[in-house]
Amino acid sequence: MNRIKTAIVGASGYTGMELLRLLLVHPNVEIVAATSRQEVGKTLAAVFPRFCKAAGAELAFIEPDPDAIAASGAQVAFLALPHGVAADIARALLERGIKVIDLSADFRLRDAAVYQEFYDHPHPAPDLLDEAVYGLPEVRGPQIQAARLIAAPGCYPTSILLPLLPLLRENLLELNTIVANSMSGVSGAGRKADLSLLFCECNESARAYGVPKHRHLSEIEQELSHSAGEKVTISFIPHLIPVNSGIVTTTTATLRDGVPPAAIGAALDQAYADSAFVRLLGRGGCADTKNVTRTNFIDIGWQYDPRTHRVILMSAEDNLGKGAGGQAVQCFNLLFGLSPIAGLQNF
Amino acid sequence: MNRIKTAIVGASGYTGMELLRLLLVHPNVEIVAATSRQEVGKTLAAVFPRFCKAAGAELAFIEPDPDAIAASGAQVAFLALPHGVAADIARALLERGIKVIDLSADFRLRDAAVYQEFYDHPHPAPDLLDEAVYGLPEVRGPQIQAARLIAAPGCYPTSILLPLLPLLRENLLELNTIVANSMSGVSGAGRKADLSLLFCECNESARAYGVPKHRHLSEIEQELSHSAGEKVTISFIPHLIPVNSGIVTTTTATLRDGVPPAAIGAALDQAYADSAFVRLLGRGGCADTKNVTRTNFIDIGWQYDPRTHRVILMSAEDNLGKGAGGQAVQCFNLLFGLSPIAGLQNF
Amino acid sequence: MNRIKTAIVGASGYTGMELLRLLLVHPNVEIVAATSRQEVGKTLAAVFPRFCKAAGAELAFIEPDPDAIAASGAQVAFLALPHGVAADIARALLERGIKVIDLSADFRLRDAAVYQEFYDHPHPAPDLLDEAVYGLPEVRGPQIQAARLIAAPGCYPTSILLPLLPLLRENLLELNTIVANSMSGVSGAGRKADLSLLFCECNESARAYGVPKHRHLSEIEQELSHSAGEKVTISFIPHLIPVNSGIVTTTTATLRDGVPPAAIGAALDQAYADSAFVRLLGRGGCADTKNVTRTNFIDIGWQYDPRTHRVILMSAEDNLGKGAGGQAVQCFNLLFGLSPIAGLQNF
Amino acid sequence: MNRIKTAIVGASGYTGMELLRLLLVHPNVEIVAATSRQEVGKTLAAVFPRFCKAAGAELAFIEPDPDAIAASGAQVAFLALPHGVAADIARALLERGIKVIDLSADFRLRDAAVYQEFYDHPHPAPDLLDEAVYGLPEVRGPQIQAARLIAAPGCYPTSILLPLLPLLRENLLELNTIVANSMSGVSGAGRKADLSLLFCECNESARAYGVPKHRHLSEIEQELSHSAGEKVTISFIPHLIPVNSGIVTTTTATLRDGVPPAAIGAALDQAYADSAFVRLLGRGGCADTKNVTRTNFIDIGWQYDPRTHRVILMSAEDNLGKGAGGQAVQCFNLLFGLSPIAGLQNF
Repeated sequence: MNRIKTAIVGASGYTGMELLRLLLVHPNVEIVAATSRQEVGKTLAAVFPRFCKAAGAELAFIEPDPDAIAASGAQVAFLALPHGVAADIARALLERGIKVIDLSADFRLRDAAVYQEFYDHPHPAPDLLDEAVYGLPEVRGPQIQAARLIAAPGCYPTSILLPLLPLLRENLLELNTIVANSMSGVSGAGRKADLSLLFCECNESARAYGVPKHRHLSEIEQELSHSAGEKVTISFIPHLIPVNSGIVTTTTATLRDGVPPAAIGAALDQAYADSAFVRLLGRGGCADTKNVTRTNFIDIGWQYDPRTHRVILMSAEDNLGKGAGGQAVQCFNLLFGLSPIAGLQNF
Repeated sequence: MNRIKTAIVGASGYTGMELLRLLLVHPNVEIVAATSRQEVGKTLAAVFPRFCKAAGAELAFIEPDPDAIAASGAQVAFLALPHGVAADIARALLERGIKVIDLSADFRLRDAAVYQEFYDHPHPAPDLLDEAVYGLPEVRGPQIQAARLIAAPGCYPTSILLPLLPLLRENLLELNTIVANSMSGVSGAGRKADLSLLFCECNESARAYGVPKHRHLSEIEQELSHSAGEKVTISFIPHLIPVNSGIVTTTTATLRDGVPPAAIGAALDQAYADSAFVRLLGRGGCADTKNVTRTNFIDIGWQYDPRTHRVILMSAEDNLGKGAGGQAVQCFNLLFGLSPIAGLQNF
Repeated sequence: MNRIKTAIVGASGYTGMELLRLLLVHPNVEIVAATSRQEVGKTLAAVFPRFCKAAGAELAFIEPDPDAIAASGAQVAFLALPHGVAADIARALLERGIKVIDLSADFRLRDAAVYQEFYDHPHPAPDLLDEAVYGLPEVRGPQIQAARLIAAPGCYPTSILLPLLPLLRENLLELNTIVANSMSGVSGAGRKADLSLLFCECNESARAYGVPKHRHLSEIEQELSHSAGEKVTISFIPHLIPVNSGIVTTTTATLRDGVPPAAIGAALDQAYADSAFVRLLGRGGCADTKNVTRTNFIDIGWQYDPRTHRVILMSAEDNLGKGAGGQAVQCFNLLFGLSPIAGLQNF
Repeated sequence: MNRIKTAIVGASGYTGMELLRLLLVHPNVEIVAATSRQEVGKTLAAVFPRFCKAAGAELAFIEPDPDAIAASGAQVAFLALPHGVAADIARALLERGIKVIDLSADFRLRDAAVYQEFYDHPHPAPDLLDEAVYGLPEVRGPQIQAARLIAAPGCYPTSILLPLLPLLRENLLELNTIVANSMSGVSGAGRKADLSLLFCECNESARAYGVPKHRHLSEIEQELSHSAGEKVTISFIPHLIPVNSGIVTTTTATLRDGVPPAAIGAALDQAYADSAFVRLLGRGGCADTKNVTRTNFIDIGWQYDPRTHRVILMSAEDNLGKGAGGQAVQCFNLLFGLSPIAGLQNF
């Protein structure tokens, strides 16, 4: 089988680890470069003992140097870097003819001013924003296939957008009534030595954080507005809960007058009947993170409350899977014309 | 010190265990009877090894027989029984001159028809509803002091009502915009042999359940409506998360036109400045369950989002503490004229 | 690809679930039958929502009827049944020409009297014991390849035997000094509605159990004695810890006089240098369950303490993986001449 | 009530937090000083929101300056500092007439050479070693009452020594056969920003560490030797498991020839019949951390295996409780002639 030469830039965090986990055994991938400033010279297996005995895990980490990456023969690079850092290396790789799937926030927004508002610094590469494709395969499949630069969505946005977008496209909701509450596993906060992420600080704990204006709101509202055809502003409250990975999101919104509840299920069915990775649980289905961890699935159930005329959307995904690494691989499969499920058949 | 002779009826579940934990070392309490059909004849210490060497833990469980409880000399009984079962024994104890603090749902609602709607069976003692006092000490202190029959609130309602009631009394909110999302530890589901409550089913899992019409909605809306002076209908979505105990609730609502955000903080300050067990975290304070577990505190923070004109209320309590056993003891202290914090000084 | 028609008997517990997880995506397997008395008529995906959208997950559970299993065309059956129950159906399937990989304890012991001593009932099929092969592929590869009836080892025994056997074969240890302490995830106790397995009973808890004569001792000592060439009796203390899956075992033993510590590493290297699933961590390597969960690997490290002249063996595996389902699939691969790692390439 | 003016030096780690938790509500204590270099100027309640509304929690952290501590009027100081750091401040406080209960390792060993061997630096105050009393109240009650400088034992040692010492005193064991395996909650590793202590690194993980010569071995063997009347050398293997707190220890040893198993129970009974904090579970009792967390109890059960002639001792304590803060308070109660259980009546 012809394998695509692939680089992973910034591979020592949790997202990088998930990309390695998926790509080391992806039938169409050969990992030719993995970078990490802190781990230069160590093998993948040494840094992540879980990967010991995987074919390819004896590769050594290198510096995130674009020339070295290009010299590895990489045709495509996944970037698992902090926002603000990803843009420069993305440009350098593109200039060297390497396609880029960026998992940071740097290319998710169409508007550099919104980026500055939410990320507190000027956009590092505004000229590339027009070209970048927001990598939600269920929504932008054709554009992803043709892209050079893909911006994989954030974990929270994926869990909020996939249930909502079909309802907005069908104009089923009162747009100013949308409230999304998400609960995320601790890996979503990254692999960094920080007191607040210690086991004893997170275990037996649950709390909201980042209210009222979490950075992911920017891309959520951009995509909702795009589907609705008008500006949408929502409330989004993220919470941290003591699981390694997994996001469950509950979104409520008022149905427009006269919309029958069955229209909710119909809109979801129509949008995702042929989807490989969206699993519809139907009315009353309560999505559970335990069914999606370590997969690329998102489970979506819904309920309708006639007392309040609100729809309740319940979605679950793995924040590292469909919320990050899995979705990036799904984009990769599209980009290279592979089977949609190549390398993503884990249960 | 003069100790009040106290019975605990239904003491082998998690709420019963919490009551025992608190009352065994309460300076003004002598436990004279503890009942459990399954554990008759065993000592408290045998059923709950944690209590071994506590003074009083050598007491043996008896049948939940009103005459036997009366014969123990009990002046007051805590009932930690399922709804539908509590009412009969409550009546029998009242007839024998024993005050009752009921932790079931049987006496929380003023309207037997609402009980039937939410609990799917006729109310077992509608004639007692007028007399029963909803045992939220921050709201009904004087009535609790004078009561014979106290209905301790549910765990979810406590976490939703305490932040909301002051805002409703001050008429700050658009009443039809209230959405409450709660996350609860697994002890809230009770101590029963059920596949869905196994460690491996709950660990590394998070999900909504009981939508759209959880039973606790009935008392939540009753109390909100009472404070608002008109009928209030809300959305309430409970979730199960993998912690032993603790509830964190996030409630959103739109401010009425012209209400300044500072009015939120002012309403909370005014309501709870002198409260022994409500801790106000102020604007931006994100309540965390880890700070309240095994205590009778509820922590309340809030935030305002000018983009949506919504207030975000964030509260945390222990579902077994302020949400059940602790609050019942707080009522007990009021009922017997004790220090508000007697037996509740745990950190 | 020619797929082997495969049945899973008793597929609704945790071991059955793990077998399904592995076999649904095994490239050489077609699942033609799955049985569960409680779930007859439901699909695999309905009982285990995690498997929804897996090819084959729409298969419906049937009764564990040997004729029905034979009618499915099954060439081989995995049995994930309780001990005492497995033997009868194993015999019936063998009579119908179906090979059997039994994950119960029924065929692990060579001596029916030992079975009765440890399992408290007469062996249900003593005539089959001679034929059954103890399915530890690192030790009995050729016999497994030729077998009709394979007895997959217990989870604890696997974690204890693989580090110890090479040392016994080389005669490095004082045989009467072996002490094994194991810590197991809760899935090892099975998927049954039992108060002691509730989330709140297991979370934030750790304890020994089953001392001094856990049932797995019987097969551990049988295999140790076989390798040592004389009767070996050990101490084995299992513990339950709050993880879903994973076993870590620490085994101590005194080196025979004159044996140099380096002989330990040499014996392990020689035994497992070519092994696909044993990963040697070397001297000082502390095996961690988090590196092996959901894989078929066992990680083995060791240390030597000159103060006590003891070797310390530290092994980690997934109790459902290398300790049960993964190892059974490893046997299956041997039995059908497949690649050793077919269907087991998960990280 | 006359309250003893008390200082806590190094109060921002997990042990310091536990000391605060106990001492803030101890009926005979007034906390007059709490130190933390990092948190100077913040109140106890600000650093630990759990303590908000506790009387005394508005005290502000100060620098660990002996003169400032003396100026606070402190009669006694608890030191929760790293080893090597504690000795200097202990000396300075003693010189100012303040009694010291040190929870570090600095004064646990009688022999400065052993300290250097295990802690890799010269002992910082060898002249004080003679005076220091090893603060195991069940063993050295009278000396503790009369001490000026108490060295509270380590968490692992407490869980190993209390079950073993009575057996050594009675000469029941073959001394060279003792093997102790301990599993500890993550708080035992301290409150420090370290990748290996992140939630995602510890959750769903179990592993040994620190073999073969953990620092606590030094005091364990010192105390065992003292009781045995001859040099005792043991194997000790600590493990990390995903719970916040709690240690369970399993110790095995061979009975001396001719010793009847009943002698084990008799020795334990005789040693601890009158003990306030040792709970004997008897033969077959498997100690569980969940029964002792947040208490000062140690639960001890035992079993005898006639096949190997080994005794199995199973003990459980809270590493922060009986293993650290609780035990230090127990020493404090002795030192000041208070009720043994003052401030330690939590369940």
